Amino acid sequence: MARMKELALIERIRGDSLRQPKGLVTLGIGDDCAILQPAAKTEIVVTTDLSLEGRHFRRDWHSPESVGHRCLARGLSDVAAMGARPLAAFLSLALPPGTKDAWIRRFFEGLRALAERHGVPLAGGDTAQAPNEFILADIVVVGSVPRGKALRRSGAHAGDRLFVTGSLGGAAAELDQMRSGQSRPVQNGSQEDHPQMFPEPRIKMGEWLRKNGWATACIDLSDGLSSDLAHLCRESGVGAEIVADRLPLGTGATVEQALYGGEDYELLFAAPPTARLPKKIAGVPVKEIGRITTGKAIWITEAGRRRKLKPRGWEHFRS
Amino acid sequence: MARMKELALIERIRGDSLRQPKGLVTLGIGDDCAILQPAAKTEIVVTTDLSLEGRHFRRDWHSPESVGHRCLARGLSDVAAMGARPLAAFLSLALPPGTKDAWIRRFFEGLRALAERHGVPLAGGDTAQAPNEFILADIVVVGSVPRGKALRRSGAHAGDRLFVTGSLGGAAAELDQMRSGQSRPVQNGSQEDHPQMFPEPRIKMGEWLRKNGWATACIDLSDGLSSDLAHLCRESGVGAEIVADRLPLGTGATVEQALYGGEDYELLFAAPPTARLPKKIAGVPVKEIGRITTGKAIWITEAGRRRKLKPRGWEHFRS
Repeated sequence: MARMKELALIERIRGDSLRQPKGLVTLGIGDDCAILQPAAKTEIVVTTDLSLEGRHFRRDWHSPESVGHRCLARGLSDVAAMGARPLAAFLSLALPPGTKDAWIRRFFEGLRALAERHGVPLAGGDTAQAPNEFILADIVVVGSVPRGKALRRSGAHAGDRLFVTGSLGGAAAELDQMRSGQSRPVQNGSQEDHPQMFPEPRIKMGEWLRKNGWATACIDLSDGLSSDLAHLCRESGVGAEIVADRLPLGTGATVEQALYGGEDYELLFAAPPTARLPKKIAGVPVKEIGRITTGKAIWITEAGRRRKLKPRGWEHFRS
Repeated sequence: MARMKELALIERIRGDSLRQPKGLVTLGIGDDCAILQPAAKTEIVVTTDLSLEGRHFRRDWHSPESVGHRCLARGLSDVAAMGARPLAAFLSLALPPGTKDAWIRRFFEGLRALAERHGVPLAGGDTAQAPNEFILADIVVVGSVPRGKALRRSGAHAGDRLFVTGSLGGAAAELDQMRSGQSRPVQNGSQEDHPQMFPEPRIKMGEWLRKNGWATACIDLSDGLSSDLAHLCRESGVGAEIVADRLPLGTGATVEQALYGGEDYELLFAAPPTARLPKKIAGVPVKEIGRITTGKAIWITEAGRRRKLKPRGWEHFRS
């Protein structure tokens, strides 16, 4: 059977930019595996994230550049949450027959722009013809961190203060604008203008927190604060209380969207009461939103009322 | 939106077996990334492989155990071809709503049986609801190899002899039996009985070749000999000639299937004329099938006639 031309295009695009070894990638695309050379006394972190059309993105809402950007941002954000430095990315991509060349090129442009900004080579992956009309991608990011220094979800203690970076709910607010037809797909933009379309993984922030040593636990906000705070608390065996008024809301975002909307890709972290944190880290605001408590319950105080905050899973959206 | 129950099941299955750190995996499922601790003076190899329903497997032909086994075998085989040792696997899995619990459990049983045989923990991954009725999986395998010692595709020289492990064409022959209705899905089996359903990645063979130092180039046979030999020759900048009579055919397999059928997951490697290789390595036969030549052309001699061997891509099968 003839090789699908879309797959040949992907291979050419990848080959153009990525055949050359770069940094700690000593062998890239063109062999059975890529070879990475981690520095001495480091550990390797690995994360994989699916991006499925109709589940994580829609072609009528997200430009090809945005899909490529978001695909990689998902993986980089997990690496940021460990306080690690990304070494290389790997992309498995399945495309329906007839996917336009322009779509493929623009997808890679979006992905590559973000990759270059963070110095992350695309070192390999897989390609296949999708069995139906949906595009599917899986991104793998491998990072490195000094041995024993990774930020985990599990180190928070009762009494620690809780912080978030940047602003919350903006991604969900922009998605609502798309849903209601008030916005159109955009080819490029920043986290500030287009938090849903071009979220910025907090790599520098994560590295600052890791080097600084204050953070006792850290997680990235991909599922929404209510869910991700519950993950952090469960892994640390603690509870928490937060104050709605303190949540740094993104442009046009509601408290509801900050709590339950997903895909903000900010960091949520705990630090001891004695921690001295600047108001901005690596140019990004850091806001105290509550504290870690004993027990298992998570509470939120909103308009003077205290209630339990139930994790509500962010399952992206249906097509 | 309520979390899909199938995803909860996957997380429980993974959580049951994989939460405990194991070997060089110092942090498994339950954080933003897994953490691996490579040994000193090693390099890391990384490979990703898609397994898409209707493209790489069919539920009416492949049992759930076979799908799980094959999914991991694809990644392990790439690691074997580098002469590396697998450290950890990561699985991204998207399931259609309504996928039966029994299918999911049996898929993981097949994957886990192979993983345990090779001491490879499943250290992470991602789960999502598929946007349609097709199951999709992406496997990532991370391995380690002493620095600078990985077997590459690119080191073959004119005059080297060409070898294959095991037997060829068996996977395609068994697929033809399924296609014609002569076989039914099987829950378990060996490479010998069921080369299509339960291929055996040649991890020990790869490690033997790497330690022994004879192999100048190596690749795994996933696309079929005609394609994979072309890959090896292109990366090495050489040609080759092989003899059809020498191909070790699998049970019921034809020369055609050995050349163009895929998914045998045997190793193809080159070694200098002076190399001393036993007839069996790690219990698996090794057969000399031809030699590396100057130039770029690849020739095959069959029934006394010499002709160019065109790579014919193995695109698995259509649903």
